[in-house]
Amino acid sequence: MTTTKATEGSNEMSRIMAGWFSELSPMWPGEALSLQVDKILYEGKSEFQDVLVFESRSYGRVLVLDGVIQLSERDECSYQEMITHLPLCSISNPRKVLVVGGGDGGVLRELARYPSIEQIDICELDKMVVDVAKEFFPGLACGFDNPVVTLHIGDGVAFVRNAPPGTYDAILIDSTDPDGPALELFEVPFYQAVARALRPKGVMCALSESPWLNIQTVKNHVNVCRQVFGKSVRFAWTTVPTYPSGVIGLVLCSKEQIDFEKPVVTDKALGTMRLGAACFKRPLKYYNSAMHRSALCLPEFARTVLDEENNTSNGESPMANGH
Amino acid sequence: MTTTKATEGSNEMSRIMAGWFSELSPMWPGEALSLQVDKILYEGKSEFQDVLVFESRSYGRVLVLDGVIQLSERDECSYQEMITHLPLCSISNPRKVLVVGGGDGGVLRELARYPSIEQIDICELDKMVVDVAKEFFPGLACGFDNPVVTLHIGDGVAFVRNAPPGTYDAILIDSTDPDGPALELFEVPFYQAVARALRPKGVMCALSESPWLNIQTVKNHVNVCRQVFGKSVRFAWTTVPTYPSGVIGLVLCSKEQIDFEKPVVTDKALGTMRLGAACFKRPLKYYNSAMHRSALCLPEFARTVLDEENNTSNGESPMANGH
Repeated sequence: MTTTKATEGSNEMSRIMAGWFSELSPMWPGEALSLQVDKILYEGKSEFQDVLVFESRSYGRVLVLDGVIQLSERDECSYQEMITHLPLCSISNPRKVLVVGGGDGGVLRELARYPSIEQIDICELDKMVVDVAKEFFPGLACGFDNPVVTLHIGDGVAFVRNAPPGTYDAILIDSTDPDGPALELFEVPFYQAVARALRPKGVMCALSESPWLNIQTVKNHVNVCRQVFGKSVRFAWTTVPTYPSGVIGLVLCSKEQIDFEKPVVTDKALGTMRLGAACFKRPLKYYNSAMHRSALCLPEFARTVLDEENNTSNGESPMANGH
Repeated sequence: MTTTKATEGSNEMSRIMAGWFSELSPMWPGEALSLQVDKILYEGKSEFQDVLVFESRSYGRVLVLDGVIQLSERDECSYQEMITHLPLCSISNPRKVLVVGGGDGGVLRELARYPSIEQIDICELDKMVVDVAKEFFPGLACGFDNPVVTLHIGDGVAFVRNAPPGTYDAILIDSTDPDGPALELFEVPFYQAVARALRPKGVMCALSESPWLNIQTVKNHVNVCRQVFGKSVRFAWTTVPTYPSGVIGLVLCSKEQIDFEKPVVTDKALGTMRLGAACFKRPLKYYNSAMHRSALCLPEFARTVLDEENNTSNGESPMANGH
């Protein structure tokens, strides 16, 4: 049904025709998810990217940056809960947390479940994302209402580089895909800075890519992290219907050896938030201890490529045999 | 980008414009996956449904029935391996297996990994599906080359009803969605017939729906199965990028209590097929024991609805709270 192709620099509106938004990208050629648009709520162009918000027919409100769906109200729970609780449930009593990106506030909302946290720094590149989230996504942006949150607008790479060594118990990299302004967030120097900024028992979790879509990009990302964190690197994934291929990858790293398969925080403890705002009263929708463990289980085509023992050899994925 | 809407009875071609196929359905209103079409290979209309095969730009060949994507060469491994090995790896030494539907042959291909199987009956409603698979999907239809396979063209419900009681070690229901000719395959009388046709230690696995898309339909399906199989009913899911929402559900049942979380067949044993044809030499691409166990782990929004202890009460899903 697609009658035009996305071209570089095209305006968001060119992607909406006859009431449907289609997500076309050179990162996933030949496929596109389309969502029916009830109403366009916001369209802007920041210093860094095109910003679009629409009310969809079946996924609630949707945030789009540079033509790529960042979140929908219907399925954001999976991404926000997993990128937060996979690392945070792997350690005890976190006190200081840094979020790089994450301007929608969803990760901040999930961090409000940990009563031990006394400081959250968030460094988001694009103020427009924060402003738009506060206006159109109160169910996520309520995360900014937590009094321990300090918002820094600026370059995440510089922020991490300038952080005092050994500051954070957890650093969460909630960025966009590696083909835009976030490219540096997928490279070795950035992760070296992250490792320096972490406490000795600190953990990191970063957005990666879908193993279904591009296992080679995932492998490169994991290898970059292994150069910095050694053996304490695990790849996890979660389902997100509005992301290309329906899943997204996450890379988990720790400075000291941590058994990521054994969460130390119980589901019951996580279910309660201590803050007053209505949005903090929500129960977990996606994460539980069983999903934590299963997020680390990989299908054979990904396991053979990403498992450390195979990764130094030139172990071929079964997917190399034709499709 | 969608410029027309699917209408009942519309010809497949109306869904292909400007070189893209879009999957529109009243079962998932407001969303559509589109795949770029390199070449249409086959278009036909059987007694039961519209049949379309095209070469896609990025997912290999794609089979479409009544406008709904059934499989692509790139991601069929997940569905075929999981619907087969979740039940078959849960029992020892299966000898007789029945496949209802599954005319593409992919499940038959996976069944070839079990040397103990001496009889496979497959009852497919639509001969055109088998013919099309043999012509365009040799990597799946090779499953028919196994000499223990007997193909029956006809109504699966009648076939199961007429099967001698206690015949099969496993029955796999590889049907289409419940809104078409397969509707009866989601109802109590069919599962009663399935239970009769199974041996005392027999297992069943049936296609269900995506928990992301319609948890209520999934709950109804699970409840139908519980009416017949009692406590021995488990819901599992697997990722399939070309299915709506990127995941699909499976219902696993057994006549006697089986611990589906503990597969009794090793990955190594499964990796070898005993048959000569090239397609039988393929390694597992998706299934392994870890994925077996993780397929049974459900996100909180589904667990709270489907867990047996919650299921008799009117336990609300966290998803009921807004999107």
